[in-house]
Amino acid sequence: MPFADAQESVSPLAQTNQIIDTDVHETFPSWLDLAPYLKEPWRGLVEHKAWSGLSFPFAYWASDGLNRADSQPDSGGPAGSDFKLFREQVLETYPIKHAILTGQFFPGDMEAQFEFASAIASAYNNWVLENWVSRDERIFTSLHVAPQDPIAAAREIERLGDHPHVVQVLLPIGPAAYGDPFYHPIFEAAQRHKLVIAFHHSDRLRSALLKNRYYIEWHVNVPQGAMSMLTSLVCNGVFDKFPELQFAIVESGFSWLPHLFWRFDQNYRSLQQEIPWVKQLPSKYIRERVKFSTQPTEDFSAANWLRLIEMLESDRMFIFSTDYPHWDFDAPEESIPRELPADLRRRILYENARELYSQKLEALA
Amino acid sequence: MPFADAQESVSPLAQTNQIIDTDVHETFPSWLDLAPYLKEPWRGLVEHKAWSGLSFPFAYWASDGLNRADSQPDSGGPAGSDFKLFREQVLETYPIKHAILTGQFFPGDMEAQFEFASAIASAYNNWVLENWVSRDERIFTSLHVAPQDPIAAAREIERLGDHPHVVQVLLPIGPAAYGDPFYHPIFEAAQRHKLVIAFHHSDRLRSALLKNRYYIEWHVNVPQGAMSMLTSLVCNGVFDKFPELQFAIVESGFSWLPHLFWRFDQNYRSLQQEIPWVKQLPSKYIRERVKFSTQPTEDFSAANWLRLIEMLESDRMFIFSTDYPHWDFDAPEESIPRELPADLRRRILYENARELYSQKLEALA
Repeated sequence: MPFADAQESVSPLAQTNQIIDTDVHETFPSWLDLAPYLKEPWRGLVEHKAWSGLSFPFAYWASDGLNRADSQPDSGGPAGSDFKLFREQVLETYPIKHAILTGQFFPGDMEAQFEFASAIASAYNNWVLENWVSRDERIFTSLHVAPQDPIAAAREIERLGDHPHVVQVLLPIGPAAYGDPFYHPIFEAAQRHKLVIAFHHSDRLRSALLKNRYYIEWHVNVPQGAMSMLTSLVCNGVFDKFPELQFAIVESGFSWLPHLFWRFDQNYRSLQQEIPWVKQLPSKYIRERVKFSTQPTEDFSAANWLRLIEMLESDRMFIFSTDYPHWDFDAPEESIPRELPADLRRRILYENARELYSQKLEALA
Repeated sequence: MPFADAQESVSPLAQTNQIIDTDVHETFPSWLDLAPYLKEPWRGLVEHKAWSGLSFPFAYWASDGLNRADSQPDSGGPAGSDFKLFREQVLETYPIKHAILTGQFFPGDMEAQFEFASAIASAYNNWVLENWVSRDERIFTSLHVAPQDPIAAAREIERLGDHPHVVQVLLPIGPAAYGDPFYHPIFEAAQRHKLVIAFHHSDRLRSALLKNRYYIEWHVNVPQGAMSMLTSLVCNGVFDKFPELQFAIVESGFSWLPHLFWRFDQNYRSLQQEIPWVKQLPSKYIRERVKFSTQPTEDFSAANWLRLIEMLESDRMFIFSTDYPHWDFDAPEESIPRELPADLRRRILYENARELYSQKLEALA
């Protein structure tokens, strides 16, 4: 029964329909919840706890660890595993028209046994569609794939890419540079199904100096993965090879973009003979084809928002996100300054994401 | 005979004395030129070509490779190895009051045989003092050390740190994060001798995604090393532990600084319990204690220079550099826009570097 819970979820506030939240980290309550969606031999590996999951070297030092204290379900499952609590804390608290699920576990982080990773990805996708997407028409989701096996990833995109509430393929930013042609079957399949490619950093990301002693160091340097990913995509000709493909970089900030535009364009002017298949300035590809989610917004003023937009010569690149249920959650009113012009706030909170996901959203309208 | 060539080098243009060039990559003509400065057994390793030097995985795609075409000496040595050509092309072409040598080979890049690395560093320092510094009073230099052996590095700083034309210790930004207390003996020695700590990326630096297919990718992502280094220095409490120490980040740009300030300060506000020894906002340490050389200036307008300065709330952080003899050399007039206010240009071209190196420069005045 699709959208079973939709009736009860439309609050008066939600009816204003002004926000698209592009980064919601839903998760399954436990690995055992994925078991019914797995075939053997993978099901047995999960049921018998033969696989230990992934680890992250840092403890989270925010006051309640990785998550908002109030996002812990009474049921005892992990934060982000209770659909009704999410609906109450996000969908009914803010005027959210659409929320895009991005997941919490990325099969791309599995270092070995790629067939198992692909099976986990498929199981996770089925679980999300059945347990979250089917419960509320405002919810859209990302397909999880195991990019370490690009052909299997493309097959998963073929399998579910036409689902009306699947809007993108999520690729984790870990050590892999997806500009490499090895990964292009994923882009080809995504383009064929009118899906956005969304990048989100994973626990396997490191920074330029590899080792960090502290979590805060790791967290401050997360955007480096996005900088390198954009460089990789441009230099490997991805934007011209897949001309319909649109991209989102989720949770890596954007105030570093003027720097990247200027440095990359200058390097392109000097060194383009190395990459003659790249036909235009890097900044132009990025400005036209990539959007950046806003959370975690940094500590800067409305005046600096406007300076950044002048430097970037565009107000079309920013898409709002909450990052629910993580500790650095952004509420819409607090994170996008009220002093900004109303039409710019609307661009950030709604219009830019609507344009990004228009191929799917308009088909439903 | 100190400053033997000084007389012939003062051109009318140079007498205006308005510029400090903070990044000149001088080099020795060949490894054999270091042999006279080495004791056995290191001397034999160099003389017998028992060591192959270091390699860089990329070919340089600029029209003449790594260096300006016109910087190749007629003698056949490498670019940057001919003092007279440097004097003609830089000291006598622009009104350079002081030029700071930064070297071309960094002993810190040697992955093994640390005692050999320390010996090479000492030999290089002696060679530079005898063959460059002694020839012109405008020339100041950086001490090379092997930070992989911090105690030996501190000993080298003790040996030469009081030379009146030694202004800083150069640490290569490769994979090492020098905030780690392991490296603090270097900072302690530098502070004792009133030397600046200058960081310059090395060929061993990689970016967050580790592998790059192309040189342009590598080159675009070089600033990530500087971002991580600043994060490491702040989080490990280096600024409070060494309160007199000043820092320079050479050739890694600066237009990413507003981003780093905002993101780092926000993270500090949320996560400072992880690093309670860090007493103030990260941006405040960096703004007060670190300067950034300008080359390679990026493709941005005077208006964007001024926006950056407004965002950073400081015009004291930028110091001019040419990067002679590399391909992306910056001439002072072209790289620091003429449209900027005259006092700001003077800050960038001269005053900020004079303040940074004041402990040594004023002792000579």
